[in-house]
Amino acid sequence: MKAVVTIRPRPSVLDPQGQAVAGALRHLGFDEVESARQGKIIELVLQDADPDAARARLDRMCRELLANTVIEDYQITLEP
Amino acid sequence: MKAVVTIRPRPSVLDPQGQAVAGALRHLGFDEVESARQGKIIELVLQDADPDAARARLDRMCRELLANTVIEDYQITLEP
Repeated sequence: MKAVVTIRPRPSVLDPQGQAVAGALRHLGFDEVESARQGKIIELVLQDADPDAARARLDRMCRELLANTVIEDYQITLEP
Repeated sequence: MKAVVTIRPRPSVLDPQGQAVAGALRHLGFDEVESARQGKIIELVLQDADPDAARARLDRMCRELLANTVIEDYQITLEP
């Protein structure tokens, strides 16, 4: 089973990495860029399991390691 | 207009970051993790533009700054 975890900075949190990306793009002439925010995506291959159980485990993985829930939101997508 | 750019290591390229994530998850007891690969996601807000033109510009942004096309693949998704 494959799972995709998307981790983004919370909307209320400053994102200096995203600001740097937006600034660099404008500097290169992409003046249409109003803002940018950067997050990460983690693709996991899991040993076959019940989707509900896998989702619960993935939720724990996010809270224990993958995401910093003080400043980041995460989203879990399962693929068969 | 909002655009989401997803950048992943190419399948043929070693991904030490992803390997570290997989190792750390197993170390925490998540033994079902077979492998992990880590990429990034960049959400851009663009001044309103023609979707086709925006997609062409985003393709240039990826090739010039956002992705290292030697080792990374990118995917562009436009949201209205």
